[in-house]
Amino acid sequence: MSEPVFDIALDVLTKKYAALKAEKLNLDLTRGKPSEVQLALSNPMLENKNVFALDGSDCRNYGHLEGLPEARKLFGEYLGVPTQNVFVLGNSSLAVMHDLVVQMLMRPVPGEVRRWDAYHNLRNQPVMLCPTPGYDRHHAICEHYGIRMLPVPMKDGALDIDLVESLVQTERNVFGIWCVPKYSNPTGITYSLEVCERLANMEAPPGFRIFWDNAYAVHDLTEQSDELPNLFELCCRAKGSGRQEHREKEDRLFVIGSTSKITFASAGLAMLAASERNLAWFRQSLSVQTIGHDKLNQLWHVAFLKDMAGIRAHMAKHRAILKPKFDRVDEVLKRELSEFNFVRWNRPKGGYFVNLFVPKGRAKRVVELAGLLGVKLTPAGAAFPYGKDPDDSHIRIAPTFPPLSEVQKAMEVVALCIIIATYE
Amino acid sequence: MSEPVFDIALDVLTKKYAALKAEKLNLDLTRGKPSEVQLALSNPMLENKNVFALDGSDCRNYGHLEGLPEARKLFGEYLGVPTQNVFVLGNSSLAVMHDLVVQMLMRPVPGEVRRWDAYHNLRNQPVMLCPTPGYDRHHAICEHYGIRMLPVPMKDGALDIDLVESLVQTERNVFGIWCVPKYSNPTGITYSLEVCERLANMEAPPGFRIFWDNAYAVHDLTEQSDELPNLFELCCRAKGSGRQEHREKEDRLFVIGSTSKITFASAGLAMLAASERNLAWFRQSLSVQTIGHDKLNQLWHVAFLKDMAGIRAHMAKHRAILKPKFDRVDEVLKRELSEFNFVRWNRPKGGYFVNLFVPKGRAKRVVELAGLLGVKLTPAGAAFPYGKDPDDSHIRIAPTFPPLSEVQKAMEVVALCIIIATYE
Repeated sequence: MSEPVFDIALDVLTKKYAALKAEKLNLDLTRGKPSEVQLALSNPMLENKNVFALDGSDCRNYGHLEGLPEARKLFGEYLGVPTQNVFVLGNSSLAVMHDLVVQMLMRPVPGEVRRWDAYHNLRNQPVMLCPTPGYDRHHAICEHYGIRMLPVPMKDGALDIDLVESLVQTERNVFGIWCVPKYSNPTGITYSLEVCERLANMEAPPGFRIFWDNAYAVHDLTEQSDELPNLFELCCRAKGSGRQEHREKEDRLFVIGSTSKITFASAGLAMLAASERNLAWFRQSLSVQTIGHDKLNQLWHVAFLKDMAGIRAHMAKHRAILKPKFDRVDEVLKRELSEFNFVRWNRPKGGYFVNLFVPKGRAKRVVELAGLLGVKLTPAGAAFPYGKDPDDSHIRIAPTFPPLSEVQKAMEVVALCIIIATYE
Repeated sequence: MSEPVFDIALDVLTKKYAALKAEKLNLDLTRGKPSEVQLALSNPMLENKNVFALDGSDCRNYGHLEGLPEARKLFGEYLGVPTQNVFVLGNSSLAVMHDLVVQMLMRPVPGEVRRWDAYHNLRNQPVMLCPTPGYDRHHAICEHYGIRMLPVPMKDGALDIDLVESLVQTERNVFGIWCVPKYSNPTGITYSLEVCERLANMEAPPGFRIFWDNAYAVHDLTEQSDELPNLFELCCRAKGSGRQEHREKEDRLFVIGSTSKITFASAGLAMLAASERNLAWFRQSLSVQTIGHDKLNQLWHVAFLKDMAGIRAHMAKHRAILKPKFDRVDEVLKRELSEFNFVRWNRPKGGYFVNLFVPKGRAKRVVELAGLLGVKLTPAGAAFPYGKDPDDSHIRIAPTFPPLSEVQKAMEVVALCIIIATYE
């Protein structure tokens, strides 16, 4: 970015600041939460009182550890995998990813002979590749279990696959990589076919796993959906190379999905898709962990969403609510910051976030100033491993939860704070 | 038991066997599942469409990691602990126990300096005390994570607390003890005040934990409920002794509860009660594992069950369905086996199981014979660590799921198979 250019007088800024301060705002742009209006879209699901699955089984009772067959069919389609390659689980995809990490630490994944936790004792931490900016809760799992995070900064609006390939080859103990491959949290990036093909085909240790957190698979903000290549198919088709057998490439992938931002954030469904060997491995711990998940919720989800057409129609309603908010963020920033060349932001085609890049070393200050004016923002750096943005320039804006009027007001505050922080 | 006494002719047995075989039965007494009639008792819960908690929060959205305040209040009362000492979680108490074990392996519990998994590397397995017969799924967790199980055979219909105290002192690396303290799975035993006081007050390693799986807290089969002492209070009141501080005794307890056999087996609520230090420790992993559990289900549970009086009234309806089944088991066994002095069984005052003790070395054969007649029983030995009953004499009968007529027929088969197996 070029040097900051100012043609605004300090006293104008001060007056604006004082005026906003007097409004005693209490606005929150911190987390990617659906709004009440969005949640209400799925209220018809609450009308369902059926308790019997298609196979006649009673969903109130124990059973179906892998998920209801009809749920596996629908969400297999949703994730682009055959029914037998998907489990439908509880209400939290984060819990699925957490549990996968824990199991990888505790016992060898298919193709590997050692459990990852064994490396800890050799004073060799397992290493997770973290495309940045990324999802803070992915990072929190790594931090909790002492997995060292290696940032992979996004490059030209894409995953830096050259760097990924090189790190997987040169770093010792590469445990895996976190990917939010479509409308990435928070960058909005969708992975290209080239990136996906190289992820499927690169050589990697047999214990390496791609955590393909496809959280925003159908969460478009425009009518033209980004097309995410089917990594599951690419991995199935990947040929062996070097010391790597074909099956190791098939096994390197965990696909994770969720309806938290389709139906109810706290009462949706999570799912895991993977090779049959991986699922058999996961089932071993799943079967000691639980007798089964809430199948009533699975049953009602299937009845409500029906099929992929039903999911798409439902998501169009979400889009109608969300698009104006994202448009408003863009409008306010354009209007307030058009004279300044030191701020850039993206206009995502899907997902839940807008990324603001302010001048280096100023992000923390912007967040602090906004806080003083009653606008809560996600802490600067939150999207980076260990909460450390090396440039202190990234701010994640989450405009989905507040009503449109609050989004507008909050963004006016943010814009002013950016100018002041840069002016300082 | 005295020597088997026979006064039945072989040809009578053979005829009876052939007659039952011809009926081509398909009956199942394997698992402690509620029946459809029991599940229907909670159907009114499905009518609830409220989505807002008492604090005004939207239960469809993220939040309330520790559970809804009103759910914590009710289930704190249910488990006999203050509201701040209980978390209300997902649909599976087994998952809560599993996750506690995993976290104990991965990082030090309050009061301990090493994580339990560290012991693995010293070729010293952590050791779990397992009162036997016990709950097979407790054992499965230990087996999956390489925790060595040390059986503590029940003695005179009670936990052998002398042996527990001695093992905790003399065995290295005692990780904890599994207890189902009321209407124990499967023995039906309720722990006495003396046992509970000694559990609270004995000296034990700081990393030791009692897994107090109070799965049948209100699951009476008679109108006189067994009175389970409040171990949480006893631990809070326990004085320091020897090298042991008071707080270590307070921290040694995890109380686990569930509504799986109150409302819906697959869609109930699980809860964890413990000292504030333990809960703070558990919260650390919980907060990286999930954003929160299904709060709609928590909300509806509270509205449906209301308070302890509501829970008790609801459980009386379960009792009305279950008692005749347990009575029938007893009647058939009495009628068919009255002439034989080599079989004993219990008549539980609560819980989900009847225990049959057949002559040594004959349990497996009884289960096999019953299987040939179309009556599925839990594999003999299933209630023992590693599935090994040293006497091969225990059979767990689970009469709750089938209708009364099937319970009767199945028990007639079981009785005959016992006679034949012993005859052989």
